[in-house]
Amino acid sequence: MIVQMRTGASKQEIDGVVQRAKSLELDVQLNLGTDKTVVAILGSNTGQLSTDLFAVLPGVEQVTRIMKPYKLASREFKAEDSIVTVNGIEIGGKRVVVMAGPCAVESERQLTAAVKAVKEAGASLLRGGAFKPRTSPFAFQGLEDAGLALLLQARERFSMPVITEVVDPHDVEKVSKYADILQVGARNMQNYPLLTEIGKSKCPVVLKRGLSATVTEWLTAADYLLAGGNEHVILCERGVRTFEDSTRFSLDIGSIPVIKKFSHLPLIVDPSHAAGHYSLVPAMAKAVVAAGADGLLIEVHPNPKEALVDGLQSLTPSDFARLMKELRPIAEAVGRYI
Amino acid sequence: MIVQMRTGASKQEIDGVVQRAKSLELDVQLNLGTDKTVVAILGSNTGQLSTDLFAVLPGVEQVTRIMKPYKLASREFKAEDSIVTVNGIEIGGKRVVVMAGPCAVESERQLTAAVKAVKEAGASLLRGGAFKPRTSPFAFQGLEDAGLALLLQARERFSMPVITEVVDPHDVEKVSKYADILQVGARNMQNYPLLTEIGKSKCPVVLKRGLSATVTEWLTAADYLLAGGNEHVILCERGVRTFEDSTRFSLDIGSIPVIKKFSHLPLIVDPSHAAGHYSLVPAMAKAVVAAGADGLLIEVHPNPKEALVDGLQSLTPSDFARLMKELRPIAEAVGRYI
Amino acid sequence: MIVQMRTGASKQEIDGVVQRAKSLELDVQLNLGTDKTVVAILGSNTGQLSTDLFAVLPGVEQVTRIMKPYKLASREFKAEDSIVTVNGIEIGGKRVVVMAGPCAVESERQLTAAVKAVKEAGASLLRGGAFKPRTSPFAFQGLEDAGLALLLQARERFSMPVITEVVDPHDVEKVSKYADILQVGARNMQNYPLLTEIGKSKCPVVLKRGLSATVTEWLTAADYLLAGGNEHVILCERGVRTFEDSTRFSLDIGSIPVIKKFSHLPLIVDPSHAAGHYSLVPAMAKAVVAAGADGLLIEVHPNPKEALVDGLQSLTPSDFARLMKELRPIAEAVGRYI
Amino acid sequence: MIVQMRTGASKQEIDGVVQRAKSLELDVQLNLGTDKTVVAILGSNTGQLSTDLFAVLPGVEQVTRIMKPYKLASREFKAEDSIVTVNGIEIGGKRVVVMAGPCAVESERQLTAAVKAVKEAGASLLRGGAFKPRTSPFAFQGLEDAGLALLLQARERFSMPVITEVVDPHDVEKVSKYADILQVGARNMQNYPLLTEIGKSKCPVVLKRGLSATVTEWLTAADYLLAGGNEHVILCERGVRTFEDSTRFSLDIGSIPVIKKFSHLPLIVDPSHAAGHYSLVPAMAKAVVAAGADGLLIEVHPNPKEALVDGLQSLTPSDFARLMKELRPIAEAVGRYI
Repeated sequence: MIVQMRTGASKQEIDGVVQRAKSLELDVQLNLGTDKTVVAILGSNTGQLSTDLFAVLPGVEQVTRIMKPYKLASREFKAEDSIVTVNGIEIGGKRVVVMAGPCAVESERQLTAAVKAVKEAGASLLRGGAFKPRTSPFAFQGLEDAGLALLLQARERFSMPVITEVVDPHDVEKVSKYADILQVGARNMQNYPLLTEIGKSKCPVVLKRGLSATVTEWLTAADYLLAGGNEHVILCERGVRTFEDSTRFSLDIGSIPVIKKFSHLPLIVDPSHAAGHYSLVPAMAKAVVAAGADGLLIEVHPNPKEALVDGLQSLTPSDFARLMKELRPIAEAVGRYI
Repeated sequence: MIVQMRTGASKQEIDGVVQRAKSLELDVQLNLGTDKTVVAILGSNTGQLSTDLFAVLPGVEQVTRIMKPYKLASREFKAEDSIVTVNGIEIGGKRVVVMAGPCAVESERQLTAAVKAVKEAGASLLRGGAFKPRTSPFAFQGLEDAGLALLLQARERFSMPVITEVVDPHDVEKVSKYADILQVGARNMQNYPLLTEIGKSKCPVVLKRGLSATVTEWLTAADYLLAGGNEHVILCERGVRTFEDSTRFSLDIGSIPVIKKFSHLPLIVDPSHAAGHYSLVPAMAKAVVAAGADGLLIEVHPNPKEALVDGLQSLTPSDFARLMKELRPIAEAVGRYI
Repeated sequence: MIVQMRTGASKQEIDGVVQRAKSLELDVQLNLGTDKTVVAILGSNTGQLSTDLFAVLPGVEQVTRIMKPYKLASREFKAEDSIVTVNGIEIGGKRVVVMAGPCAVESERQLTAAVKAVKEAGASLLRGGAFKPRTSPFAFQGLEDAGLALLLQARERFSMPVITEVVDPHDVEKVSKYADILQVGARNMQNYPLLTEIGKSKCPVVLKRGLSATVTEWLTAADYLLAGGNEHVILCERGVRTFEDSTRFSLDIGSIPVIKKFSHLPLIVDPSHAAGHYSLVPAMAKAVVAAGADGLLIEVHPNPKEALVDGLQSLTPSDFARLMKELRPIAEAVGRYI
Repeated sequence: MIVQMRTGASKQEIDGVVQRAKSLELDVQLNLGTDKTVVAILGSNTGQLSTDLFAVLPGVEQVTRIMKPYKLASREFKAEDSIVTVNGIEIGGKRVVVMAGPCAVESERQLTAAVKAVKEAGASLLRGGAFKPRTSPFAFQGLEDAGLALLLQARERFSMPVITEVVDPHDVEKVSKYADILQVGARNMQNYPLLTEIGKSKCPVVLKRGLSATVTEWLTAADYLLAGGNEHVILCERGVRTFEDSTRFSLDIGSIPVIKKFSHLPLIVDPSHAAGHYSLVPAMAKAVVAAGADGLLIEVHPNPKEALVDGLQSLTPSDFARLMKELRPIAEAVGRYI
């Protein structure tokens, strides 16, 4: 941490900073600049300390963090890529893993049609929501337990592992019995009681990026899961909130190389929620594969016109099959396969 | 809802839109423009319907919502201002209600010093967090149950009602025994299991605006609480996330007249989290009172230099007392009092 | 345009809206909803009218624009893709056109090394700035006229067309004598005197997206150029400003399919300014090609360590050559070539 | 500047950083941390140097700027408040100066009605645009020279100084003959040829904040004017672009105390453009005065229903007169007057 003193800060004020550093068992180095004194605070855990510890002291103008606040998710903690294995499928390996299915589980018929379609087109996992966090209390909230039962049935009948969302910390144990991967939605990225429970569960988990979370905050949220003892963490970019309104969210394509540079965790991308319209999904999915993501999470509905949730951003089975065909040469062009 | 058809949409496609509207028991009116057909969908609940219902149909170019998605929080549902009364203190009335205290409850000594200071300066409620949602898993997470006990003790000893945060849906019942007002933090504005529990509890609640929530989404989240049967809802603006980095968040001062125009709910503002630095809090607090908010939520710590959380944005007791003095003539200038 | 009246608006207020529409030679259709009257304003130029014309009238609650504000840049105005041809190079055709070179022209030696390197690697145009709009008045502002002379020399010696920025409306004529393509920088996207001059000049122009411009505003700025009579307009996405700080700007990859859907204009992308760091450029460039852009604008410097401007985001010649090799199979995977 | 080396950076790489600092005549101090070496670069002008100078060197992980990039606009350069005096009116003094009038000059009749109204209500300057930068090329662009003539006539007839916008660098000389204060619009905050001309002119100037400019970038743009020799610089906050759409822009109320803390320049605020709707302007104007701004720029139109530009955000003369009355006790409450 770099503590910049105000111009004209007194020796006593500088000593105050040094004393606090020592009380925290940190080393310091004084930089007596021509205009300002700058105190470098040195130690291996300075990323996890609050900058306020020093910023509140008299004579301090500004404190700048040098070490990143996340630790367990960083490449410095673990240099080689992590791979999360689910039913023999490696996420973070050479294969670009596609998870597809409807936004919400609506009925046995709908789910069966969806799983058949996405499996035939080459998806590796079935996605489908039983608990749907909805903006309005008057909207369809998911089939809940009945939805979980349908997912389990589809999973066994079609031998296809399942990813589904969990929203309440007290449902983690139950949902992890049905699901191969738990999904933490964007609005829950900083729901710490939920992260803590999932940390304990050891069930593989996809952690979606919050609507307005920086990459740094997202990796720090991943630290919650990792610190709890769950190493099976997969990140999922799904677009952030900006001023632009021609797409539902702005897909932060730059987060792909940034995450790959600073973290060892596997990263998938959900282009459906970012796009908000089926016609924009294929171009964004292709970009994601070309940029080096480890997988895709795509909404596919057997009949989007009748979907109860997010029909507009869902691909039809035939559009999805065409997209899968188009993605394969792109994956090969970047040294991978689908 | 306004459904705009593509140029050259067929009669059959237009009929498809009309049929769907009728199946939802809505009225339609066709506008055969020179270039495009526009179908107006009429009905009293169109604000609560998903635009996707029509956007997915063939021949549709765009669907625009006319009615707002929130209902119970709107002035159209209830024209006159709502007042939430807590221990005889009216929030939303003529008095500008100040809630003040430390970010986190740290010890009996700290809390006692804080409650004495804020009471003497004229605050009406004591704020203090027992459960602290922290960005990093390595940071202090609050005293939890011991913190609640200290709040209860301070509340009784100083006859000062208490507001404290609840983060887990399963803690709602417990926390509402200790607190006069529950606080839903910004990161939990769309934590629907939590909102649902608080809706049932009937305990007065402060709903903080999400970091990247629009005013419309915030009022729709309030609808969750109201729809659950809890009418004691107070909104709290606390700044939104933008590109600007000289303050911790950007306080959306415009949300005050916007909320007052479109909603009957009382509105308070937390300038401390928006500012991020104690030196910026007074100017922002004054602006809030001048703009017509019903109250303030301010962080005050007996010794910010030793605060475990958010020391940099906490006022000292003497700074807080001075601010209270400065706020009074502003409140009077806008026809209120503190 | 859709004019929504307030609940309980009087007949006279509704008549006021109708009269104003008629005075503007527009048609209207009344939608007498159960709660509210909605007036549809119909006419072929309603996209170019201000919504304020109706929003200011008594009894009006809200006015929603249905038609887009841009016209000449839209697919509705011109359905087929536009191609801009520069020295026989088609931008917007099957070839993905790469424009590369240093951010700023610094010296003959630097520019010669750059042009050799980018030409050998397969770039079609040389980029290089003679006039540099810099955030600080104390920073290097470009070689100005001497820079233009060096560009002309490089252009003739290596038979490579040149793109360079123009910042002052009164320089348009001069710069267009040296350049094959004029570049309008992001900070000048809404510099209307500049756009007006370039509109008159008929010189091919790359219009960069403003830092916080929506796609709609960007296409409306393109209308300035088109309305002035310059049909040789190429759009350039270069990232927008958001809260994320791990990249210099957030590349809006979704703008590629959005522009392709709504506009006929060719679109290139500058991943260098969005990335801000050379290590992130290749992944972003690959994403851009996969998403369907018509070209790339990439910063390459013979010796980034000694660059006077933007060295950190510049590729070395060897990194650029490697990237070009990696881009080719991706272009082929989407049915194009480089 | 703080240069953080990569873990395991070689002695040679560290030496490279030291050598570059020495070649720039800067001092260095090495901080040999437990994990990483950090090099502090010391010197009085490090704020004006590009961080890229060091970030491009081998072995460097990150460079953090400690000194601010602006200089002349800073309190460190000039500690006491600057006051700009226009026709005897002090901007930045104890009086809160109100500048009011129509967005665009439309006709003699309109301007006369406006100037009478705003003068009577207590405004000190007349605002009115002759050159209007408009988003669409099909919109009214201002009366241009005829508008300037009308402003001059109103100025002399009513002895009221005038503020008007200039958009083209080559018009600066002309417009400064008619205007007492030049206005640089938000879209031109980084139009450096324009800033350079105004810097030379010495005419008082209001520099509006760019739509997505940070406070730091805004003050750096002010440095262009100051470095050119024009000391009569007034800043104007007018809202920034965010995701929120219930107001036209988000007024950054926090920028008021931030600017007052870091800069000596006077600061006014335009609540009209931020609000976008007349009903929201009064609350925002009151907040601005309470927060400590030195003035207001408010749109007033004798007949907003017939305004050619921005009618919806214009106050009527009677609304403006009422607002002026309401602002006075707030100004007094913060130790000032209007």
